[in-house]
Amino acid sequence: MAGACALLSCAGPARAEDGYELWMRYRPLSPFYVDGVAAVAPALTIDAPPSATVDAATSELRRAFSVWLGRPLTIVNDGAGLLLCRVDRPCAEKLPKIAKKPPALPGAFRVDRLNGGRIAISAHDDIGLLYGSFALLRHIQQQVPLDDLPQSDAPRAAIRMLDHWDNLNGSVERGYAGRSIFQWWRLPGYVDPRLTDYARANASIGINAVAVNNVNAPATFLAPRVIAKAKALADTLRPYGIRVYLSARFSAPRDLGGLATADPLAPEVQRWWRAKADEIYAEIPDFGGFLVKANSEGQPGPQDYGRTHADGANMLARAVGKRGIVIWRAFVYDPDPAVERTMQAYNAFQPLDGKFDANVVVQAKNGPLDFQPREPVAPLFAAMPKTQLGLELQITKEYLGFSTHLAYLAPLFEEALDTGGLGADGRATLAGVVTAGPTSLIAGVANIGSDRNWSGSHFDQANWYAFGRLAWDPARSSEAIAREWVALTFAPDPPLIDAVVPMMLASRQTVVDTMTPLGLAHLMGSDHHYGPAPWVDDLGRPDWNPVYYHRADAEGIGFDRSATGSSALAQYPAALAKRYADDSDPALPLLLWFHRKRWDDRLVTGRTVWDELVVRYDRGVAGVDSMAVQWNGLRGRVDDQRHAEVAALLKVQQNESRWWRDASIAYFQSLSRRPLPAGHAAPAHPLSWYRDQSFPEAPGI
Amino acid sequence: MAGACALLSCAGPARAEDGYELWMRYRPLSPFYVDGVAAVAPALTIDAPPSATVDAATSELRRAFSVWLGRPLTIVNDGAGLLLCRVDRPCAEKLPKIAKKPPALPGAFRVDRLNGGRIAISAHDDIGLLYGSFALLRHIQQQVPLDDLPQSDAPRAAIRMLDHWDNLNGSVERGYAGRSIFQWWRLPGYVDPRLTDYARANASIGINAVAVNNVNAPATFLAPRVIAKAKALADTLRPYGIRVYLSARFSAPRDLGGLATADPLAPEVQRWWRAKADEIYAEIPDFGGFLVKANSEGQPGPQDYGRTHADGANMLARAVGKRGIVIWRAFVYDPDPAVERTMQAYNAFQPLDGKFDANVVVQAKNGPLDFQPREPVAPLFAAMPKTQLGLELQITKEYLGFSTHLAYLAPLFEEALDTGGLGADGRATLAGVVTAGPTSLIAGVANIGSDRNWSGSHFDQANWYAFGRLAWDPARSSEAIAREWVALTFAPDPPLIDAVVPMMLASRQTVVDTMTPLGLAHLMGSDHHYGPAPWVDDLGRPDWNPVYYHRADAEGIGFDRSATGSSALAQYPAALAKRYADDSDPALPLLLWFHRKRWDDRLVTGRTVWDELVVRYDRGVAGVDSMAVQWNGLRGRVDDQRHAEVAALLKVQQNESRWWRDASIAYFQSLSRRPLPAGHAAPAHPLSWYRDQSFPEAPGI
Repeated sequence: MAGACALLSCAGPARAEDGYELWMRYRPLSPFYVDGVAAVAPALTIDAPPSATVDAATSELRRAFSVWLGRPLTIVNDGAGLLLCRVDRPCAEKLPKIAKKPPALPGAFRVDRLNGGRIAISAHDDIGLLYGSFALLRHIQQQVPLDDLPQSDAPRAAIRMLDHWDNLNGSVERGYAGRSIFQWWRLPGYVDPRLTDYARANASIGINAVAVNNVNAPATFLAPRVIAKAKALADTLRPYGIRVYLSARFSAPRDLGGLATADPLAPEVQRWWRAKADEIYAEIPDFGGFLVKANSEGQPGPQDYGRTHADGANMLARAVGKRGIVIWRAFVYDPDPAVERTMQAYNAFQPLDGKFDANVVVQAKNGPLDFQPREPVAPLFAAMPKTQLGLELQITKEYLGFSTHLAYLAPLFEEALDTGGLGADGRATLAGVVTAGPTSLIAGVANIGSDRNWSGSHFDQANWYAFGRLAWDPARSSEAIAREWVALTFAPDPPLIDAVVPMMLASRQTVVDTMTPLGLAHLMGSDHHYGPAPWVDDLGRPDWNPVYYHRADAEGIGFDRSATGSSALAQYPAALAKRYADDSDPALPLLLWFHRKRWDDRLVTGRTVWDELVVRYDRGVAGVDSMAVQWNGLRGRVDDQRHAEVAALLKVQQNESRWWRDASIAYFQSLSRRPLPAGHAAPAHPLSWYRDQSFPEAPGI
Repeated sequence: MAGACALLSCAGPARAEDGYELWMRYRPLSPFYVDGVAAVAPALTIDAPPSATVDAATSELRRAFSVWLGRPLTIVNDGAGLLLCRVDRPCAEKLPKIAKKPPALPGAFRVDRLNGGRIAISAHDDIGLLYGSFALLRHIQQQVPLDDLPQSDAPRAAIRMLDHWDNLNGSVERGYAGRSIFQWWRLPGYVDPRLTDYARANASIGINAVAVNNVNAPATFLAPRVIAKAKALADTLRPYGIRVYLSARFSAPRDLGGLATADPLAPEVQRWWRAKADEIYAEIPDFGGFLVKANSEGQPGPQDYGRTHADGANMLARAVGKRGIVIWRAFVYDPDPAVERTMQAYNAFQPLDGKFDANVVVQAKNGPLDFQPREPVAPLFAAMPKTQLGLELQITKEYLGFSTHLAYLAPLFEEALDTGGLGADGRATLAGVVTAGPTSLIAGVANIGSDRNWSGSHFDQANWYAFGRLAWDPARSSEAIAREWVALTFAPDPPLIDAVVPMMLASRQTVVDTMTPLGLAHLMGSDHHYGPAPWVDDLGRPDWNPVYYHRADAEGIGFDRSATGSSALAQYPAALAKRYADDSDPALPLLLWFHRKRWDDRLVTGRTVWDELVVRYDRGVAGVDSMAVQWNGLRGRVDDQRHAEVAALLKVQQNESRWWRDASIAYFQSLSRRPLPAGHAAPAHPLSWYRDQSFPEAPGI
């Protein structure tokens, strides 16, 4: 058998590398490295009270080491080898002193080498032992020298959360990776074994909270029949330190409870929610709480009764009590489109600063609009010092090419988390704001579905991974995360890593260039958000239309958000506003977001606005072509199946980036009436051809 | 590594037995058996012209033997070992004479032992070599002695077809196994590698035709953009001998072509279809043809223009020409509900016998109603001697418990195929009718989706398997198929096979008993067809309502289809009508289908109708309980993951069978007003409780 295992996967080629194992691929180690591993891991000693979480840690260690050692990792009462040690137990005497300090948040751990080279994973709590186990496995998977230990780590945000926009019928809003992995219809009688692997994957990167249903939630999700389903999920995820949250419809007391009102100040409404919370906690004792989209895009909310967002959030928070939290989304825009769209969340929430209960988190998207390929940070993050704010990122690529395009999002996340000077004191980065307290929260809208590879494409797994790693520690760099992800997911092969990581790091800017260069935004097709449609001008309200955002005409293009325009810049602290107003950075990341320019205005790059726009679109296409060339050069360094799958998607991306470029240039040229700069080819089709394309079955709606 | 492979799956436990490999699990053989295999397979000699199909055969042999031998199966120019031989090549001289007879249909093969024990797979065509390779692999997987060769086989039906009711948006009508595996949205740029495994699975059981889209088809499926997707599928399936068919909307010339009419006699319509067929054949040279649901359940058809089904079918058949066929479904019921529903297809089609072109197949469901757990055969099969009829079976369990309930359908298929005495001469069984000529066709509505285990549950894989095996040879027995499926899918372990096969063989009758005992039919919930709803009486037309079918009232229950009632019996040949009219078989399979009985009528069983009904429901529940007990006893004989998954579903089935029984008894008792027979418990809830249940998100619509 050993020979066959080297040639084929041992289980036969129906078991080709399909991505199911994510970054938890425990493959044979190099002969040199494995000797060192075998020396320190003859067996495993566990000194911790029995618990499902310790069992999960043990099971993961045995799973990996059994492959590496070629024999089972036996558990011994006390002896040599790996030590899994909770620091309130006698084993703590063997540990370095530093491990004994109590952590600020649950989950901190150390991985030490003791005298004689023995490896000890230690933590103050069971979940720390699990996280520490995954950290050690990651270390070995990458074949980092064992002498590079100790390693210690602790989470910076208390709640590291995935928001699933999953519906009860199995569809996933903005999901491009198949159906809801939760298989709602089959719960609670049947829990897909895959959910244990889902829990493992989340725990391996520190995710500890999951909102299991779409924020556009029907009240049905609070019916007893469905709470039983959520309980089955909670029971499955609990050993991995993951708490379940539910998106709640604000009008549930009416829709489900039969009350005449959902007014948050009505006593019967308060009683209804309290009883509902009690009912849920009876089934799910560690229920995390409610996530609420209220008075936004047609969802009901407290404003329906003349109450404020704070009235609504606090009423729910009191129903939950000390048992959990309420996450209240700040993604709102006024029914009155007279106010500039990107200013509305600030206007609605900033005046409420200080009015929210302690167990309310106000969760805002990273930018003021809606998960565009590039946005400035939302001004709200610097405007509510007395409120616990949470950050909502989007992992699923609603606006960045679905699961087709290769776009590594860590640079986008990092850009949001690392916006220096956001606070008036120049110190409070966004990372600081969202990691302030015991309810500090970073959430990501999940890109996970029933597809065999979880995320619809292999490279989209990196966005799930990067989200978890950044939510745990926002100071990590995109590059470091990419390097470890490539090593874990493909192979700890330095030439491979050196080739793939630069592709990943450049990929998000490439998508920006192919779709929304120079700070443009919201140019995509209606409803499904697939493909270019900058010409759309006939939707129900002005700020749903692409033309509202790019404002292109015969004169020029861009949105003046300075004092001479919408004044959105005034919502930012002065230092940041100054930075955003500056157009001297040759990268011009947000030029047309904040400025309106004439087509012939000369930019810092030396080109006119029109020429620069065309150059950027072409640069985007060239970036995709370059990725395809680089990836093709890696044939043989990556297993055939995954190599072919990525190559096929890059080919699609090559076509789609040309479509974006050509459609956009054809449209903007119909307004600018200017020739293309020398050396840039005309669109493949006339504008009318692009306008005529339709894709009624595009996914994710 | 060898040790670890024995203990864990070599690839690690994330690679638990999840059912992905179906019945093509090439696992290490017993030490005794493997020696014999190693002796006859030191290498592989191929004597056949190069082709993608021969490559597929070679690749499958190498895949399996490399695991079995623990080393790659090398290909040699000539020598010892396996021989893959096309009989028009020199290798034929080594074969027994009998292999040289030309087969009636493509795909026949022999597997012989030559002098010295060498094994030769031979065929007249490449696809026969592929089928023969799978036959040999099946033989070895089951560890049947090699001395039991030779084996020879040939298909009895020319077209062995899966009908996928898959929609362009990824949903699957009556699908309970996730989304469409075809991933329409990503085609043609991205072809899921899984589709190669899908092709392998189909070829392994002889399936050679696939209709890739729902019979309720939008005309979009004939748009160039979508034909390109079908082409990508056809290119992937072709090496495995599988031809692609498309469901076509009859009104496409209007919907898509912009014509004013779709009248089949209009020259412009005929031209449109001819051009459309040419367009498809330019992309897919071996395109199988069109599958059409016309003038049925709201679909457009020739009757919209005063033309007949034959007019419509022949017009399309002439557009296709000699290149393919048109499959015209006989599942129609008149807009005028005055005629008894089960008689309508006969009335609509029988008069057209002899009017269809040679390349038209009229495809009828096995029964006259609609895939119920038990029906008599459709009378049409004995009524159209001058027409090529095709048989449509349903593999997906729309009416038999979705993918939740364990119901092995081969006995149902066999019942339809083996209805003796259907022809006037007492000889022409249904199997004979559907396997008459070069366009003989058996189709099954697929139960395949994106679920990791393909069919939603492990045991539902058996229904896909059994369909293929029976379509290839309708004379095979349900039991023999079950025995080989268990051996291939779980293990060649006689005690396991002896325990599981009886469960499987009894399971369909158990579902009949729990849902529609004694020949009842169509008692399920509206639209989604989930759960019991015998009380429904308010749907748009009489024959959509369960009350139309059971006709229960204070007096009795059942549908009189004799001469004193609807006279449906008169549509059958005399011998069969006599058999169906007879109610002296204590199994009473179709009692209430053909007869109306008073509640107190005494049956051949000695019980009254009312008591027998209750007894049957209870027998059904007991049958499910018994399956659960038997399966639990197999813990340890089946891998943990699949054992647990099946056990969880059996638990759901235990609950749902009680729900069916109790709801049905509560309802029928509200009419019969009779006490339950002694020893039978009352329903758990009052009737109103059952009527109040609602499941708006039930899958498959």
